[in-house]
Amino acid sequence: MHTMGRRAREAVSRLAVSSTEERNGALLAAADAIRSETEAILEANRADMDRARAKGLTDAMLDRLWLDADRIEGIARGLESVAALADPLGEVIAEWERPNGLRIQRVRVPLGVIGIIYESRPNVTADAGALCLKSGNAAILRGGSESVSSSQAIHRCLSVGLASVSLPETAVQLVPTQDREAVGHLLRGLSGNVDVVVPRGGKGLIQRVQEDARVPVIGHLEGICHVYVHESSKPEVATAVTVNAKMRRTGICGAAETLLIDAAAADTLLPDISETLIQLGCELRGDPRACAIDPRMHPASEEDWSTEYLDAILSVKVVEDVGAAIEHIQRFGSGHTEAIIAEEPAVVERFFRELDSAILLHNASTQFADGAEFGMGAEIGIATGRIHARGPVGAAELTSYKYLVRGSGQIRPA
Amino acid sequence: MHTMGRRAREAVSRLAVSSTEERNGALLAAADAIRSETEAILEANRADMDRARAKGLTDAMLDRLWLDADRIEGIARGLESVAALADPLGEVIAEWERPNGLRIQRVRVPLGVIGIIYESRPNVTADAGALCLKSGNAAILRGGSESVSSSQAIHRCLSVGLASVSLPETAVQLVPTQDREAVGHLLRGLSGNVDVVVPRGGKGLIQRVQEDARVPVIGHLEGICHVYVHESSKPEVATAVTVNAKMRRTGICGAAETLLIDAAAADTLLPDISETLIQLGCELRGDPRACAIDPRMHPASEEDWSTEYLDAILSVKVVEDVGAAIEHIQRFGSGHTEAIIAEEPAVVERFFRELDSAILLHNASTQFADGAEFGMGAEIGIATGRIHARGPVGAAELTSYKYLVRGSGQIRPA
Repeated sequence: MHTMGRRAREAVSRLAVSSTEERNGALLAAADAIRSETEAILEANRADMDRARAKGLTDAMLDRLWLDADRIEGIARGLESVAALADPLGEVIAEWERPNGLRIQRVRVPLGVIGIIYESRPNVTADAGALCLKSGNAAILRGGSESVSSSQAIHRCLSVGLASVSLPETAVQLVPTQDREAVGHLLRGLSGNVDVVVPRGGKGLIQRVQEDARVPVIGHLEGICHVYVHESSKPEVATAVTVNAKMRRTGICGAAETLLIDAAAADTLLPDISETLIQLGCELRGDPRACAIDPRMHPASEEDWSTEYLDAILSVKVVEDVGAAIEHIQRFGSGHTEAIIAEEPAVVERFFRELDSAILLHNASTQFADGAEFGMGAEIGIATGRIHARGPVGAAELTSYKYLVRGSGQIRPA
Repeated sequence: MHTMGRRAREAVSRLAVSSTEERNGALLAAADAIRSETEAILEANRADMDRARAKGLTDAMLDRLWLDADRIEGIARGLESVAALADPLGEVIAEWERPNGLRIQRVRVPLGVIGIIYESRPNVTADAGALCLKSGNAAILRGGSESVSSSQAIHRCLSVGLASVSLPETAVQLVPTQDREAVGHLLRGLSGNVDVVVPRGGKGLIQRVQEDARVPVIGHLEGICHVYVHESSKPEVATAVTVNAKMRRTGICGAAETLLIDAAAADTLLPDISETLIQLGCELRGDPRACAIDPRMHPASEEDWSTEYLDAILSVKVVEDVGAAIEHIQRFGSGHTEAIIAEEPAVVERFFRELDSAILLHNASTQFADGAEFGMGAEIGIATGRIHARGPVGAAELTSYKYLVRGSGQIRPA
């Protein structure tokens, strides 16, 4: 592990003087490699899936692990869209002049070496590697044991891309062993050779990171996302957005876990929403007023409001108004993503102003909480901390900056 | 301490809905209070100084602690210049539209509760409190035992300012006890009621923070700052900037600790620089070639190149060229601030491109490494980490952001 750290640090020096063309060339060559290696990746993924089924992983976990030709094509396109992004490096973020004539520029630079610890999703190998490379960072990837074969197959394509432009293959390294020691080493920073760790995974990993990390962390906690249906909402929007927010994919952090609906609109709007969800196989857990409207709902316990199901289950609560909805979200939400369905602008503005989640949406599905959907090409995760980056973390979010100050002999007065 | 945490969290809710006028009004009223309480602050400071002298603090430490009417006027002006800054909160940092019609805004929000741990400088109480308040954050200040009386006197003025606009005085709290327990509590985050800790102090504090912190840290390591004099430099600029960088104030992190000078120019430029420094009482520690030019220099040991003197001592090394200067700085520097004195543009650009310190200056003193000098009104410190903020940390650097996304019923395709 420590050798990997030193090699990553060395790669940073080379990446720092790499051109936009080199880094983009590596990404495009990697995308080509992903396409031409589709069969090999599928075969590796089948091996992972067989092991995962034998271990009895849940359907949601199997869905995260599973690849088909479409998803592999999606991985290749993700690499291409990261290549198509503007180069964040060297960008002058701000510049100004001081009364004494000093000209100050704030210029974007890489963070350095980024350690990424993730679990079952093999596409993270490509997305995280690509975003780090785009932003001039060296990546040390530590994937989950479930996806080891898929990740190795994808990582080989990234190495092909790097080699094609003569960038060091150590710019994106995959930790070979699957022992838990590797995580500990990354969290302690490999003797100063890791600048930040990005964990992507379940509660066990997050807790471990919070306890053991001695380097900065761009963290990702759970996504207890809410959809709030205001009485002014259009019925067809309320149903379509709620159903998509819950059911498009249930295993992702941007999936809705709780529906809040105005008492004044519950009788007219809730039946259509619950009927559609139940038809799609979703279990509903309602508060007494919601259960009274649709008796097929199970009664929700207090615990339901703070549970991230990551499954086809939705808790449903009837609230008095937007104030009550905001209060519920402040109490039970995880600050990830919330949507309001409403036509009344003042209500939307209040929801946007008083809530402080990383992403607030109006009349759109919480499943848009995603770097690619935000136009970032891909994402390394959705940050729920408040430091450095919040929400989708793309290439620009993996940078720092330095100040360049140009003078003509200025000295500072006492 | 945990009560302070809860009160700070409550204050955040009030600050989040406070107006620009309220926050600025509190700052201006606090500046007035600082001026009208000058005598009381001076008296408190005299008590601190007496204790500090009895404890045998170094001259550099005494200088950091000491206040006079001018420095107090400077503190009041600092509050006013923070008030005069544009309000960072609510600022739309970026906005764009997606092909599906979603309109995305990235809007600036406060970080939350900021814990500031500092040592002898009493003005930090005002600067840190002001910057937190400006940016809508609640502050928990833990000053050093040396400056306890001065800090309390200044803190009272901040409370007067908050009260004058009916903002909660708990928006800026000063930890009353001086026991080491307080630092530990802050570093562990007061049960989730501290969002980030900003340490300002010496190596002992920094080491403790790195070991014990369980919350994000905006850190400040040592400032081993370099002045590099290129052979193309103007002699008068080389002397004036080097002398100012070392001697204006020797106890601050932006003070130069090492002078690197081109071999081709050392014979002509170094004698004037060393003569001026020695006249001002500066001890010089040179490498063999520097000592040969001015035999009054002491021989530098290997340790000198990585020592932050914070005193009237400067190490001096003759280097072959800009490449050797860059190599020396990469090896021994702390990534804080470096200056190049040169007239040749290509050399300056190489220095700016290849070095990655938080602040790089051309033909200007390293002592400009300061938030006020950067136009930020004041600073809470100079960050040497790479995460969240680098260089001077002003009000805008104490913010995070949230995304507001406006749609018209968009759902995400499978």
